[in-house]
Amino acid sequence: MLGRLNHVAIAVPNVADAARVYRDTFGMGAKVSRPVRQPDQGVTTVFVELPNTKIELIEPLGPNSPIDKFLQRHKAGAIHHVCYEVEDIVAARDHMRALGATITGNGEPTIGAHGKPVIFLHPRDFNGTLIELEQV
Amino acid sequence: MLGRLNHVAIAVPNVADAARVYRDTFGMGAKVSRPVRQPDQGVTTVFVELPNTKIELIEPLGPNSPIDKFLQRHKAGAIHHVCYEVEDIVAARDHMRALGATITGNGEPTIGAHGKPVIFLHPRDFNGTLIELEQV
Repeated sequence: MLGRLNHVAIAVPNVADAARVYRDTFGMGAKVSRPVRQPDQGVTTVFVELPNTKIELIEPLGPNSPIDKFLQRHKAGAIHHVCYEVEDIVAARDHMRALGATITGNGEPTIGAHGKPVIFLHPRDFNGTLIELEQV
Repeated sequence: MLGRLNHVAIAVPNVADAARVYRDTFGMGAKVSRPVRQPDQGVTTVFVELPNTKIELIEPLGPNSPIDKFLQRHKAGAIHHVCYEVEDIVAARDHMRALGATITGNGEPTIGAHGKPVIFLHPRDFNGTLIELEQV
């Protein structure tokens, strides 16, 4: 059912500093995007384009960012979630629910950082790993 | 300098249980390998083959596994590291060192789970993220 790994998200306290590490230390240059504010997601994002997938660097934006608590536990930053592609987000959601998995929020797909419908699976059912599913 | 994302590693308390989630819940079937004991690495691994990269599920093996402490902090499991491909592991190591990054262990490449030379970059220089570099 899973398709490609769309991205790995890394929560960081300062996305400009983290972007510099990928741009300069790792020599990724123009493959590192500028920071983009995503008020609907409560994060500022930078994408690092690798040959086969992307790294998404995320910094909290505004009050009650969904990554505030995570960064309180991991002050320097940490890998926050992985995002897998699926063909049909509603079918995937219903399949996961039928197997007893918990969808975060109200369970309805929202529009993610790429403008595509996404859901998040609660880490408790997946070895402590927050998993985003994105319809492509 | 970075090439493909070779894999994302997820530390889990029980790799057979975690493999079942990917095989059955996520419907990855035969794309999920059998568990392989890697005594030199101190872990048992299962690989999940996605269309563009791999997920590596790792369970501690033997005394003093390098993921013991991590699992004590994250009892249910958590994303442990990302692995990027590089062309020349010694050149990458020297480049990282020259920029002040810390290589774990004695800094010499070891042979990783794929039989290829690897180094690990200390999380303190990379936003709390443990990063493996693998020569391909």
